[in-house]
Amino acid sequence: MVRRIMPSRFITFEGLDGSGKSTHLRRAARWLELSGVAFEQTRNPGGTHLGQAIRGLVLDPATGPLDGVVEALLMFADRRHHLEHVVEPALAAGRHVLCDRFTDSTLAYQGAGRGVPPATLDAIDQAATGRRRPDHTLLFDLPAVEARRRGQSESRRVTEGVDRIDAEDLAFYERVRQAFLAMARHEAERFTVIDAAGSVDDTWSQVERALVAQLLERS
Amino acid sequence: MVRRIMPSRFITFEGLDGSGKSTHLRRAARWLELSGVAFEQTRNPGGTHLGQAIRGLVLDPATGPLDGVVEALLMFADRRHHLEHVVEPALAAGRHVLCDRFTDSTLAYQGAGRGVPPATLDAIDQAATGRRRPDHTLLFDLPAVEARRRGQSESRRVTEGVDRIDAEDLAFYERVRQAFLAMARHEAERFTVIDAAGSVDDTWSQVERALVAQLLERS
Repeated sequence: MVRRIMPSRFITFEGLDGSGKSTHLRRAARWLELSGVAFEQTRNPGGTHLGQAIRGLVLDPATGPLDGVVEALLMFADRRHHLEHVVEPALAAGRHVLCDRFTDSTLAYQGAGRGVPPATLDAIDQAATGRRRPDHTLLFDLPAVEARRRGQSESRRVTEGVDRIDAEDLAFYERVRQAFLAMARHEAERFTVIDAAGSVDDTWSQVERALVAQLLERS
Repeated sequence: MVRRIMPSRFITFEGLDGSGKSTHLRRAARWLELSGVAFEQTRNPGGTHLGQAIRGLVLDPATGPLDGVVEALLMFADRRHHLEHVVEPALAAGRHVLCDRFTDSTLAYQGAGRGVPPATLDAIDQAATGRRRPDHTLLFDLPAVEARRRGQSESRRVTEGVDRIDAEDLAFYERVRQAFLAMARHEAERFTVIDAAGSVDDTWSQVERALVAQLLERS
């Protein structure tokens, strides 16, 4: 029997701010290192010089309010650049890619959250990435009120302040959550929904199971 | 006879780097001030905090090479923001707007120059601005080799260095010039082509004539 070469896979971590996705992405990275698996850990926006600058611009109070379409154009500019310079080269070199946020976040936040029409986001997505989707997505799900509570206390620890996105309201976050869940129902094969309302270890055991299935048992 | 209220107009200055458009925009602004006409002088990118940051990012060597679609997404993000926060409020308040570069520059530079397909730029333009066009455009035309010569000596005076866009080649600038001229032929009503190859005063006399026709004789 010929052993099939394991193809590299593009895995995204999605969910609300405060859902624990970034914490678990870091834990997943340590776990993969110990497993000896070649991978790249990155974020969108933020994985390149351009992405860090865009991320900073969107969060900087001096920028003033940006409408949802402007935010989406910036996110997709970063996303195309990040695909070309980080994601696709890593996949081509045989490394898996673990990415904190991708297009699903723009559809949820700028679409469902800010009210940008789906057709507008789809046109920008087509122009920017050709509607590129990850191979698999872990959606960290928990009630918006709990994500807000966790996210705000984390934000206060880091910055002693409130950034622009965190100042928006709970109804916004609940719309975003429901949009993520609707995507997971619509593309059930691509998504694993992680129940992120429990303890870190409860959540991690679900993440580990998904990563084993996606990255280790496919060879 | 009832005197008609003069509507405010959105006028753009277009052309190659080194064509003199920015110099003549400043001169036009001083001239309009003396005429007592209410106007706003701005630039795209650069007329807002976001625009200045995007302009800096695109020109910063640390950003590294950006492909034409990424540049276009950034330009249109700025353009939408700038329309909402600068151009449309000024027009609504009855002021004319003189703007250094607008969508024609993206079509010429990222389209004809960098090779981004027209349909891609059109989709982003539609999503970002609803294909907003200025009321009138002054196109400063001169041979690419002359614009390069003028632009580079200006750049050296200011920065003692060479920025990323200025490092591109003459054939690029000639494609951009021809794209501007094709737009002017295609929308002859919207464009005044200014022969910018002569002296500053020769060029200014053409600019002044166009501004008189566009801004002062329409009441």
